[in-house]
Amino acid sequence: MHLLPYIIFIKCDIRLIGICGIQKEIATSGYLVASYLESINFQQTVYLIGSKGFAEELRNHGIKHTQIGPDTMATDMPTYVNGQIELESEIGAVVIGFDEHLSYPKILKAANYLANPNCLFLASNADETFPMEIPLVVPGTGVMVKAVETASQRTAKVFGKPSVAMFEAISKQCKINPQRTLMIGDRCNTDISFGKNCQLTTLLVLSGVTSLKHLEQYKHDEQHILMPDFYTDVLGDILDLLEQ
Amino acid sequence: MHLLPYIIFIKCDIRLIGICGIQKEIATSGYLVASYLESINFQQTVYLIGSKGFAEELRNHGIKHTQIGPDTMATDMPTYVNGQIELESEIGAVVIGFDEHLSYPKILKAANYLANPNCLFLASNADETFPMEIPLVVPGTGVMVKAVETASQRTAKVFGKPSVAMFEAISKQCKINPQRTLMIGDRCNTDISFGKNCQLTTLLVLSGVTSLKHLEQYKHDEQHILMPDFYTDVLGDILDLLEQ
Repeated sequence: MHLLPYIIFIKCDIRLIGICGIQKEIATSGYLVASYLESINFQQTVYLIGSKGFAEELRNHGIKHTQIGPDTMATDMPTYVNGQIELESEIGAVVIGFDEHLSYPKILKAANYLANPNCLFLASNADETFPMEIPLVVPGTGVMVKAVETASQRTAKVFGKPSVAMFEAISKQCKINPQRTLMIGDRCNTDISFGKNCQLTTLLVLSGVTSLKHLEQYKHDEQHILMPDFYTDVLGDILDLLEQ
Repeated sequence: MHLLPYIIFIKCDIRLIGICGIQKEIATSGYLVASYLESINFQQTVYLIGSKGFAEELRNHGIKHTQIGPDTMATDMPTYVNGQIELESEIGAVVIGFDEHLSYPKILKAANYLANPNCLFLASNADETFPMEIPLVVPGTGVMVKAVETASQRTAKVFGKPSVAMFEAISKQCKINPQRTLMIGDRCNTDISFGKNCQLTTLLVLSGVTSLKHLEQYKHDEQHILMPDFYTDVLGDILDLLEQ
């Protein structure tokens, strides 16, 4: 098997198979948004709905951003929109990542910046929920994206899987030959469809979100975009294959 | 012209033409949600994302609801989901109206209640924004609905226009003959399409959201659902017609 030189690992616990990447080799969707902005020489300020980690990623790429953290409604909406709202003039992009402090004022501000058609609208990913081991629904970044898309009537450019925007951004950083690249993932509607969208060979590991039962359903429904080229029980199995 | 006995006025300034309705005769979408819950003898508690007015409407119909107002994230998400979140057991419906205190904890709680397939999911309306006289985008209830729909992967039953649910609810309160009813509105994608959906005659007043230019576009695109049977410059014009 010829998997290398590029194996794109995203959200897999790579320690399991003993592969250690330096930070530069691990491409998170936040990293990709930040490097995209850097690549277009973005000089204005980002209005950020996102986490501390995302803010740090932007700063690492020399991108200015607004303050993160709580921004709550201290009054009622009519009072707020009639004088209390403070909009900045230097905003050139609205960027959405996961933000546990999502609030109405944040959505309102984002929508108003996006009323300017020149304002960019980027999002790290559009996952509706986080996969959890406990039986709890934990809303993900997709909720934030949908809220701002609805308010602004615009569509975000999403960098996370299954968008090819992620692949394009990675390709700018390093030369990738799709024919020699294996996309490994545990979720067909993000990981595997991402691989398919980018003409990569795909490997599903069954230790995560998608089960054999799901695969049978996809096959029955002829949902080819969700069907991996290969699957295996656990990620560690590929060690044996690599050694063969 | 035979407009009466029923003219459904919604969001029109009825004082303009000197018609005064008693409260019972003005059907807001909040009122319709509350009376729907009363009509099905709903006995559990509503998890409410909504305003003071909506809460009052529920209480007026004898419907118990959770506390409204701010519910913000005092910590980070992992800490919150691993012990700080308090979910109530008596919730039988998630109800969404406009809420200037929309927050991540509210969306998370709503999604978890909706994980129970027996939990009802109702919304007053799905308007993306409020029409404003000042150049400001003010996100509406539709943003709240989309956020919770995305997190829960369920679809809300929307009572506001253009849903026929509103007409069904009004019909339960009073006998309506669609052939003798005129739907008057200033917005084609809500008011006029509502009228069309309910087989009512429709009148557009041009003093609000939709202009003649919009009408020409709808005609060109053959969007029949958006084309009113009649239109007039201002609502007051119908006084003359009524007198003829």
